[in-house]
Formats: sequence, C-alpha cells, structure tokens
Amino acid sequence: MMMPDDMQIDDRYKGVPAGTVPFRLDRIAEKGWNLLAGDLPLPAAVLRRSALDANSAWMRAFLAHTGLSLAPHGKTSMSPQLFHRQLADGAWGITAASVGHATTYRRFGINRILMANQLLSRPDIAWVAGELSRDPDFDFYCLVDSLDGVALLVQGLRAAAPTRPLNVLLEVGQAGGRTGTRNLSDAMAVAAAVAQAPDVLSLAGIECYEGILPGPDDATIETCIAALFALMTETARAVEARGWFRPGPVLLSAGGSIYYDMAAASMRAIGLKSPVQIVLRSGCYLTHDHGWAQRAWQRLVERSPHLAGLAPPPRPAIELWAYVQSRPDPGRAIVTLGKRDAGTDIDLPVPVAWHRIGGQGPQALEAGYRLTGMNDQHGYLSLPEDSPLRVGDMVCFGISHPCTTFDKWRLLSVVEDDYRVSGGILTFF
Amino acid sequence: MMMPDDMQIDDRYKGVPAGTVPFRLDRIAEKGWNLLAGDLPLPAAVLRRSALDANSAWMRAFLAHTGLSLAPHGKTSMSPQLFHRQLADGAWGITAASVGHATTYRRFGINRILMANQLLSRPDIAWVAGELSRDPDFDFYCLVDSLDGVALLVQGLRAAAPTRPLNVLLEVGQAGGRTGTRNLSDAMAVAAAVAQAPDVLSLAGIECYEGILPGPDDATIETCIAALFALMTETARAVEARGWFRPGPVLLSAGGSIYYDMAAASMRAIGLKSPVQIVLRSGCYLTHDHGWAQRAWQRLVERSPHLAGLAPPPRPAIELWAYVQSRPDPGRAIVTLGKRDAGTDIDLPVPVAWHRIGGQGPQALEAGYRLTGMNDQHGYLSLPEDSPLRVGDMVCFGISHPCTTFDKWRLLSVVEDDYRVSGGILTFF
Repeated sequence: MMMPDDMQIDDRYKGVPAGTVPFRLDRIAEKGWNLLAGDLPLPAAVLRRSALDANSAWMRAFLAHTGLSLAPHGKTSMSPQLFHRQLADGAWGITAASVGHATTYRRFGINRILMANQLLSRPDIAWVAGELSRDPDFDFYCLVDSLDGVALLVQGLRAAAPTRPLNVLLEVGQAGGRTGTRNLSDAMAVAAAVAQAPDVLSLAGIECYEGILPGPDDATIETCIAALFALMTETARAVEARGWFRPGPVLLSAGGSIYYDMAAASMRAIGLKSPVQIVLRSGCYLTHDHGWAQRAWQRLVERSPHLAGLAPPPRPAIELWAYVQSRPDPGRAIVTLGKRDAGTDIDLPVPVAWHRIGGQGPQALEAGYRLTGMNDQHGYLSLPEDSPLRVGDMVCFGISHPCTTFDKWRLLSVVEDDYRVSGGILTFF
Repeated sequence: MMMPDDMQIDDRYKGVPAGTVPFRLDRIAEKGWNLLAGDLPLPAAVLRRSALDANSAWMRAFLAHTGLSLAPHGKTSMSPQLFHRQLADGAWGITAASVGHATTYRRFGINRILMANQLLSRPDIAWVAGELSRDPDFDFYCLVDSLDGVALLVQGLRAAAPTRPLNVLLEVGQAGGRTGTRNLSDAMAVAAAVAQAPDVLSLAGIECYEGILPGPDDATIETCIAALFALMTETARAVEARGWFRPGPVLLSAGGSIYYDMAAASMRAIGLKSPVQIVLRSGCYLTHDHGWAQRAWQRLVERSPHLAGLAPPPRPAIELWAYVQSRPDPGRAIVTLGKRDAGTDIDLPVPVAWHRIGGQGPQALEAGYRLTGMNDQHGYLSLPEDSPLRVGDMVCFGISHPCTTFDKWRLLSVVEDDYRVSGGILTFF
C-alpha cells in the first residue's frame, strides 16, 4: 500500500515553489522552508502542528470522559494521514459520504467505514458487495430511508451476491430537513423491508443527522433537534420490540457536527434492552476554525459547561496566507487569495495577522481589517487608510468551515509555531 | 512530455466506477460506458462533444470576423486538453492567474502565457526568470500596477539575472474595482519606473479587467466600463508619447469575460501611432453554461446584434448528473449533488432534465423544479408533489459559472448526444 508519506511531491501541488523537483513527502522538513521567510508561493494553506496536537488531546479526553464512539466524517479533509491520526485519537471508524470516498479510504488502509448516505447505483453496490466478500475485516455501514431505496439495494446485492449481508442503518429525519423517514410508520415500513431481506441486508441500528435542521435561531433549532431524537427513540424501541435488529449491540449514530453534547445525551436516554453503541461523526474537531466551529464551540460550552474543563479547548489549526498584491484605493488592498483557495459558503476568511519578510514576525491585525469579497483568485481586503500594509506584505487568514477549504488544496504544509515547514498532508478529493 | 491522453486513470478519479483498474485516458471510449445506462457513479460531470464543437466554431468565426487575438483564461478549466483545443480555435496564447498555473501550462506545452496578475514573490520571480533564460520560445507577460510592485520585480529579476527582460503590461483600473492604477498620473509613475529598468523589464502594453466593476445595473456598469477604457486610452497615448513601449506592436488587453464586444470596440478606438494587438481573455466560451454565461450572451447580442449572425450561438456544453437518493417530503427530493460537485457562487445549478434507467431517455423538466440549497454532498430539489421522480432516477443539472464547477472535477467525461462516453479531459487544479 502506497501511503501519502511515500508519495512524490513537486510543483504540481499548489503551495510548492515553482521548479521544485520531485521529493518524498516525508522529506519535506529537509527543504528548510519557512513561510515567514517567503520560501513558499502564496496563497498557501498550513496546519499548525501545536494546534493539531491540542485538538487531538481534547478529543481523547472527550472520548475517555463520555465513553462515546467517534467516526469522524472524512469528507472534511479527505486526508488519510489525518484519518490515521483520528484513529490514534480513539476513533472507531471513519465516515464517508460516497463510495468514491470509501474507495479512497480503503486504498489507504481504513477498514471500518460508515457511509452516512444512501447507496444507490448498480456499480456502487457491486463494489461494496465485492469488498464484503473479499475482505472479512471490512466493516461497512450505509443508510436506508425509503422502500424504493431498499428495493434498489436488495436487487443490486442479490445480483452481486456478497458472501455476507450489508449492514444498514435506518435513517430518521424531520420534515423540512434532509434525508430520513419523517415518522414512525414510514420508518417501520422501511425497517420491515430490510427485515424481509436477511440474505443481503442486516439492520445494525438507527441514524440521524441533526446538523442541518431549519430554524431561525438556536433555540428553535435545538427544539427541532429534540423532536428528531424523540423520533429516533420511538423508532429504535419499536424496531427492537419487533426483533429486527441484528444480534449484538445496536448502533445509534448522529452527525454531531456541532451539537454533539445534545446528540450524545439524547441517544444515551433512548434506553433499549440491548446494549447500544453511540457513534458521533463530527469531522471538524481536528482543525477547528476561526468562525463557524469556534461559534459552535462557544454555544456548546454554554449548554454543557462541564465539557469545557476536560482539556484545553480546541484551537484553530488551519491558516491561509496570501500576499498583498495591490493597494489601489486608500481603504483597500487586493490579496492573492480567492475562491479557488478558501471556502466562502459560511463566512469569508477572516484576516488575523500580517507579516513583512525580514520583519519581526506576525503581528495581530486590530479591528478595521475585513475581507469584503473574493473572485476566483483575488480577495478584497478593507483596511484603515493609514494601515502599514503594502504590496509584498503577507496576510494570515483564518477560515470559517474547514470542509470547503480543504477541497481547495491537495497539499497542506504542517508548520511549527515559528512557521518552519515540518510536514505535509495530502488530500484526495 | 506526458500529455493527459497518455495518463493512467482509475477510480481515484471522481466519476469513474469503483473498482476500475488503471487505463489510459485515450482508451476511455473502449469502456463502452453510457451515462444513461447507469454505468457511471453519480454525481458525474460531462462535456457534450457536439456543444464543444459548436462553441469552437463560434469562436473561430468571431476571431476571423474581428481580427482580434484571444488568450482565453486557463483558470476556468485548468485543462491542457481544452487549452490545445483553444489554440486550435485560433487562440494566440493562454491566460494564467498565477505562477502555479504557468508551471502547469509549461508542463503541457503552452509557450505563450499572459499572467493577468501581479508577479510578486521571490520564488515565483526566480522561476519566471529561469524559464526566460532557458527557453527562447517562452513568451510571458505579467501585470504591474504599483511602484512597490515594480521595485519587487526589479529586485527579484536582478537577483535572478535572466538573459532577457520580462514583458510587463501596465494595468489600469477604476476606484472601487480590483487591481490597476486608478488615474493617469499614478499610471505614468509606474510606467516610468518600468522604463527606468530596461535591463530587466520591457513595457509591452496596457491592460485592464472590465469584468468586475461595481454597479447596481447593466447601464451603470457599462458606463463604468466606458470610463475604464477612457483611462486606458489616455494612458496608452501618454506612454507612447514618452516612447516607453518596447519596439513592435503595442499589446492592449482586456478580460472581456462578458463584455468582449465593448472591450474590443473600445480598444480599437484608442488610435495609437504604433500598430496594436488587441488581446481578449474570455475563458468561458468553450463550455458556456445554463446561467451566467447564457445571460451575458443575451445582453451581448442585444448590444451588438451583428455578432449573433456569425455562426450558431454558443450552447451549454457542461452538465452535472445526480441521482435522486431520497424523496422525504411531498415537494422535495434530495439528490446526490453538493457543493463539492458544483459551483454555487453565482447561482445554484439548474435542473433541466430527468431520466430513468431503462426508460426512454432524458425528458425535459417543466417549471416547478428548482434546487433550493446544497450541502457538501447533497442538493435540495423542490418539485411538484405529483412529480414522477423517485429514488434511483437521474437528474441533469446545468450550471451557472463554469470556473467554480471545473475545479470540483479532476476528470470530466466527454459524451456524444446519446451520452455514450467518447473521451475525457483532465483538470490540474
């Protein structure tokens, strides 16, 4: 198996200096590159090792304290190196959104995959069936939420004839939400269809995704979440009463992106006769961010203050750096950072520091600096008219929502606190 | 030189069936895949060959009719195969946004590159200088818009000591716009700085980008564009009067994304004593789209009706296909298409047709179907409650703005009108 550390890197990777000849990723520290010295072309995305270490420690403490299982969503980073780090942090498996993700995970040695999505197409079903037959250590789960979907699965699996049944989780959801059956009777009809195909399907548990429910404010959303877990509870108890779960512990899984305290407490209260295993899927803890994840953390510790004291809190590990390339108007700078480099779907990146090559190191930016727009390759930075920033200076940006920033980078450099490049991680989107 | 057609493809590329063993890209037609038969995992991005051919013919007719030069912006697709097609359509060169782009272009045999951006950093300048020295056929241009920027270039180039000067274009812009000097006196100061460094810099022409000027409506924006070209005219004449242009034709270049009729007419009217070469940089003509580019085309033919008759008009060549994975609420379907698959920065993708495997082929979707939101891997499709769409059906989406969709795909299949896969193009983001 070729692991990322063994792979050859060159200037085909954005963030690697033009003209760099191929080298093994695990030799990147020997280049002696330092971001602050201007050694890297900008924009560049970096991960701060000290923050990754702190966030890993936080998750280890959280899992130890709560006894929950974690299958962090791999779609966030699509980085097998981070997956193996998450497994070392105590993760039980890695969550995928598609069979395309799962093939990548398998290639890099991930054996337990929770595909938090419906499995639909003939070629996708055939591949999963083939892996189930080929590798007894492959532990795979996917979702069902409709009779049509179960029928497609049963048809595809019977055609592919795997040597063992496919584990499915029955998904419950809420009106106005995303996937998932909306009420007990629909849920039970789907569960019955699964129970009627024991040759190819095995009902392993109940799943929901509480991360994206509609509502104008936190209080409303949190009420919706409570209703969703009530449906999950009803469904889990009714399925157990019918004896439709496979033998062994019942899996109960929720997305848990930002409400993992609520999700965990709600699932603990379900109270089945069988033992249960509670699986959360939060994928963003490792990098955290300067916006969305930070705000979610604040709300979480307000709701569940006891979690704040488990370990030092998560810190943003991911930063984007760009040059000031123009200062065309008194209150505006144009920076070399665009939509091709940073996610913009929740907030625009947040300027947090600046640096002049040869200067004293990064200086925090006070109020008055704000990114107001982005084109594909440019950012519009609003700044005080007397700002010292000039063409050739560097600006450090935090992001808000790691998922849509990771997918802009095939390589992220890992840096020490002095911005020396000490490692690198690859992504596989 | 390894060209994309020679490269090995397998299921590491999104859109290729799981379990596909490596094959050469130029053998993809032999797979016998047909999208409508369910042979491809969805979501998939496809390019319709007949539309690419039509759009190529349109551009050839436009260039023949106008005598303009085209350096289409390669950032749109980052696909060397499409670049070589654009060169065959009559393109004079390919536009880049960064040195990272330029290294990719060079790797795939592109000799003339207009970097429509400032060149700033030490490693980037050193690479360009090295290429200028190494390859006499390398024809490279970049922009300058500030004294600080010229100073960085001069310092970097003198350190790298290329065997010939670097061609620069003086960028003019408008207050509230992006990069570019805002008035004649600033422009002339930058031009003078270039003229004072003839050992390393050569002033090849004047550039502007009219594509993103602020304004509440078309009429206001078009007035701003007129003002920008007035500044370009003033500047070009003043620089010529000082004798600061390099010998030979003066390059005049504008983005021309969607206003290329106005840009061309304005630059024709500048009236220098020297011969001029007018270079437009529109990158989107080849794929067109179902939204932004289509609306821009409509406005263009209203302004410049004579262009409509040159050849059959551009047609959308790019389509995204997804499965219905859930129909959880009466008026809603969830489809397997998310922000990881489609750009959303101008409009959400537009549902245009649906298909059932084994059915009669794609049927147009009437009114009442609309994508209302997207998560990373899911789309929310609003539809009539009596819609025939069910789980497992396919939906075809058009996009609005090719740039941010291309970057979601490393492989796009080329399909015939019956959706047989006849080719493939790779992107290098």
